[in-house]
Amino acid sequence: MEPGNGRDSGELRGDVHSEIPYVHRIGVPPKPNLRKEFKAGVKETFFSDDPLRPFKNQTGWKKVVIGLQTVFPILDWGRKYSFGKFKGDLIAGLTIASLCIPQDIGYAKLAHMDAQYGLYSSFVPPLIYACMGSSRDIAIGPVAVVSLLLGTMLQNEIDYKSNPAMFRRLAFTATFFAGITQFSLGFFRLGFLIDFLSHAAVVGFMAGAAITIALQQLKGLLGIKHFTTKTDIVSVMRSVWGSVHHGWNWQTILIGVSFLAFLLLAKYIGKKNKKLFWVPAVAPLISVFISTLCVYLTHAEKQGVQTVWHIEKGINPPSANQIFFSGEYLGKGFKIGMVAGMIALTEAIAIGRTFATMKDYQIDGNKEMVALGTMNIVGSMTSCYVSTGSFSRSAVNYMAGCNTAVSNIVMSGVVLLTLELITPLFKHTPNAIIASIIISAVVSLIDVEAMALIWKIDKFDFLACIGAFFGVVFISVEMGLLIAVSISFAKILLQVTRPRTALLGKLPRTSVYRNIQQYPEALKVPGMLIVRVDSAIYFSNSNYIKERILRWLTDEEQILEETKQPRIAFLVVDLSPVTDIDTSGIHALEELHKSLDKKSIKVRNSDYNHTKISNFSNTGW
Amino acid sequence: MEPGNGRDSGELRGDVHSEIPYVHRIGVPPKPNLRKEFKAGVKETFFSDDPLRPFKNQTGWKKVVIGLQTVFPILDWGRKYSFGKFKGDLIAGLTIASLCIPQDIGYAKLAHMDAQYGLYSSFVPPLIYACMGSSRDIAIGPVAVVSLLLGTMLQNEIDYKSNPAMFRRLAFTATFFAGITQFSLGFFRLGFLIDFLSHAAVVGFMAGAAITIALQQLKGLLGIKHFTTKTDIVSVMRSVWGSVHHGWNWQTILIGVSFLAFLLLAKYIGKKNKKLFWVPAVAPLISVFISTLCVYLTHAEKQGVQTVWHIEKGINPPSANQIFFSGEYLGKGFKIGMVAGMIALTEAIAIGRTFATMKDYQIDGNKEMVALGTMNIVGSMTSCYVSTGSFSRSAVNYMAGCNTAVSNIVMSGVVLLTLELITPLFKHTPNAIIASIIISAVVSLIDVEAMALIWKIDKFDFLACIGAFFGVVFISVEMGLLIAVSISFAKILLQVTRPRTALLGKLPRTSVYRNIQQYPEALKVPGMLIVRVDSAIYFSNSNYIKERILRWLTDEEQILEETKQPRIAFLVVDLSPVTDIDTSGIHALEELHKSLDKKSIKVRNSDYNHTKISNFSNTGW
Repeated sequence: MEPGNGRDSGELRGDVHSEIPYVHRIGVPPKPNLRKEFKAGVKETFFSDDPLRPFKNQTGWKKVVIGLQTVFPILDWGRKYSFGKFKGDLIAGLTIASLCIPQDIGYAKLAHMDAQYGLYSSFVPPLIYACMGSSRDIAIGPVAVVSLLLGTMLQNEIDYKSNPAMFRRLAFTATFFAGITQFSLGFFRLGFLIDFLSHAAVVGFMAGAAITIALQQLKGLLGIKHFTTKTDIVSVMRSVWGSVHHGWNWQTILIGVSFLAFLLLAKYIGKKNKKLFWVPAVAPLISVFISTLCVYLTHAEKQGVQTVWHIEKGINPPSANQIFFSGEYLGKGFKIGMVAGMIALTEAIAIGRTFATMKDYQIDGNKEMVALGTMNIVGSMTSCYVSTGSFSRSAVNYMAGCNTAVSNIVMSGVVLLTLELITPLFKHTPNAIIASIIISAVVSLIDVEAMALIWKIDKFDFLACIGAFFGVVFISVEMGLLIAVSISFAKILLQVTRPRTALLGKLPRTSVYRNIQQYPEALKVPGMLIVRVDSAIYFSNSNYIKERILRWLTDEEQILEETKQPRIAFLVVDLSPVTDIDTSGIHALEELHKSLDKKSIKVRNSDYNHTKISNFSNTGW
Repeated sequence: MEPGNGRDSGELRGDVHSEIPYVHRIGVPPKPNLRKEFKAGVKETFFSDDPLRPFKNQTGWKKVVIGLQTVFPILDWGRKYSFGKFKGDLIAGLTIASLCIPQDIGYAKLAHMDAQYGLYSSFVPPLIYACMGSSRDIAIGPVAVVSLLLGTMLQNEIDYKSNPAMFRRLAFTATFFAGITQFSLGFFRLGFLIDFLSHAAVVGFMAGAAITIALQQLKGLLGIKHFTTKTDIVSVMRSVWGSVHHGWNWQTILIGVSFLAFLLLAKYIGKKNKKLFWVPAVAPLISVFISTLCVYLTHAEKQGVQTVWHIEKGINPPSANQIFFSGEYLGKGFKIGMVAGMIALTEAIAIGRTFATMKDYQIDGNKEMVALGTMNIVGSMTSCYVSTGSFSRSAVNYMAGCNTAVSNIVMSGVVLLTLELITPLFKHTPNAIIASIIISAVVSLIDVEAMALIWKIDKFDFLACIGAFFGVVFISVEMGLLIAVSISFAKILLQVTRPRTALLGKLPRTSVYRNIQQYPEALKVPGMLIVRVDSAIYFSNSNYIKERILRWLTDEEQILEETKQPRIAFLVVDLSPVTDIDTSGIHALEELHKSLDKKSIKVRNSDYNHTKISNFSNTGW
């Protein structure tokens, strides 16, 4: 935590060779100033993005304007908004609206809520985000994974079938606290906490969630009436097989499977030809219209084809008075909200970062969290459940040529019209279509390529990935999440307690020293043991490093004794990758020094200019 | 977690210069074998001390013998034991016995137990340890800090005054689970977990506990009858001042203060002249005898001088049936035991390591934990409370010339005789003497020199130290401990989320590149930005590193624009301290690459031989 306390690991590799030897003698850097250093440390930790930079050298009034623009970026980009940009936003907005309406209905079912709550959540939150968010490409609304997670966790507390009103109240409470969590993380600049969920764990979790969600859709797709409330694959498959003789409805299956084939084909076309991105984007709405028409004309609902039946007409009713602010459900709502809020945040930030990189603009993670938090807090008071950025809709938004968050406003407008005017038309929409749409949407969450890459790069990461995956599929969504977080943390702890050390040998005909395990041609230097420590030395690993070095020595001495070679007189510890060392580290090295003194082995630090770790002045190294 | 997956940070510094340039081209290391690597990883993490090494190439019977010797090292060293060694052990054992008896009585009071329980805890546990432990210098028994911690935590659950029997039962339960915790940590090879309590935090915690313990002794030293049960300095001082007019007893103060002066003088003598180490060691017992005699002759107890009064005669009664194995106290006992066990472990392991280094032998942390755990499990069934290694007594043991754990057996024997024969003599021992002995014992836990060194080396470590100190002194022992652990963890998390990055410049007349903040004479290379990343790149810091590098670039471009200098065309990222990179890291670097492509800035890795991080083959770097 002390940036630059006279410890410097050095020069650029390969540039060290020099004609006159004395030039290597570089003076000790000036003594750092404690107050300055502390300030720099705090700044780097919590304000690494330097949020106050634009306020510098500004007059009072200008500061207020900049402040408002910081909280509401729309005031900034809105002034430069043009009709040219609007054209792109309008097309993108209409495209994502056509995609989101059937998805919303399905996702609301995943969260065990009535269909209209999905639409509500695509109306208010996008408007708030458009004013406060800094991503230009993200499309806001309910998403599959968060809906599933929320539905499962809420169901653990209150049964949605027997007590839908209380269930809904708890959902709003959770949404409120999800917003509070997101807002606080951003406001207190703790956004870096979401980085603790590793990419690998998220990939596994998402793939597992996608499978779980797809399995849940078997209910709608096969027309099963009695379905398990559990989400693990064993319970679901048992439920599916158990109903094979009396529960399956062939008309439903016919509709569902044929439209699923159509949707997947559309998806394939969109993938093959990037210009036809709109095909998979409008296919869901087309399916809904065609299938609804079919059912209406053939009266298939009388043959047992289940339909959406009823969607409440009209825009979001207020729900602030339904939030539990006391009682036993306050704590439960808080817990569920915190988890759902963190997951929603992880997804939204990942999307924001991805698209910002593609268009080369910066998004401010902490500001995004404040925007997303505010959006969910307001959402919880207007009958919405947790909304966030959707991967599939954001990708469509981007490809349809959106320029700003106005596309979200357009989408929101279309949802408004839907709620006010056309909800009765969904009466005959078969559930099987909604199920097909969800399955085709979540399929892309299973990123086999990413998994293969993770396997290739890092086996421990793959363990986190596959652990999260199996946790979600075979146990439950929360369990998968817990496994993902635990493995991610375990990885950090392992990294800091068991850093690598390597025995170095000299490569023949060079003066380059390399790890002898990796370079079998590297030769040990007689009478000398060269060990490299591959990590900063902290209290968490100092004892291990000391003991590991002594063990290298014991092993080596044993071999030398057996082969009757001269014993070791010098131990060289290469500290080039050691960028920091704390008091425990110094302590351990002192002890190492003492132990070796007893064996009359001399210790040398390979860092020839002696300026690197000024702490060593205390150790006698 | 993948030791040596083709990633190698390199050669020894200062040896890179070479006559013929082509020799730098070193081939790519052979592809590592996954199974082998995984095995090596697990071995390094949990069996880094290679416990099965002695069993290699041995016959069946020999394996049994080695196995027994591993569990009971006494079978190994006992065979080579000689009378010469016994002489040293006898003297050391008698010395620590004379020190431990008065301390035990005082520490039992700290734990709110009757005096005999302190003596019991110095009888059975040292015997068990002597058979199973591998340290030759540690002296086992109750210690001040653990007694205080245990006393405070037990008092939070059950009041020792109104319900001493239940209090004692909970104490045995806690002791049992402290043993279980210690045993499990060792058995499952999780001993590295105690390394997470940093040295700095322990120094602060110990100093705070010493002050708290000393303050508690004011009760005995001033002869106050009504004393607070809280341990924070404010409550204690209020209690002391509140009783100034009617609670203080001048005879008690006279005895206490004069003997305290004597004890501190003895301590000073021992410190000045190492040969007189026995002076502070026997001073407590001498004080006890003299003061007891004084009180007996002057009948000072009639003047209000409080005495120890009664110590139960006879050895440890069995207490296995008193442990709570069910009910609400099971959970509480487990929690208290776990905390006390961990702290006891930290102290014992630190002592073991310190003296092992001084005499140059190895102690096996995990085996020590199994020994200490067994000792406390057996202790809990024989009316002992948590015992561990004592710093002060171990130091005396070492200086008195102990050779093996036999000195603990001698001490145990003396305690046995004390319990059987001379407990009635303590009837007239004034409490003030016990208080003086404890104060003079805990004074050395306040290690001002260590604190000064921590301040000098690492300010963040000092924060952990002082946080733990103030937490103990002003709030409570548990709170101080919690603060110590939290700050230690926060430090690890900070270290992995906010690694340092440095801007490098070329030192004039050299080809050495250094951090320009530390070396103001280092000059930036025109048209080039050189950034060094000072840590492995993992999911927890990959985004930060990416954004930090982009920020260096933005800052630099702004300066260049203002001063109308040529803009940056190359970004060189020095990855020499980067010893590992995971999938998230690769991902972040890919994104960085894309961002810079947009700005048409070329990225170069300074590692000229391209073999270091084979993962980069996937990134286009």
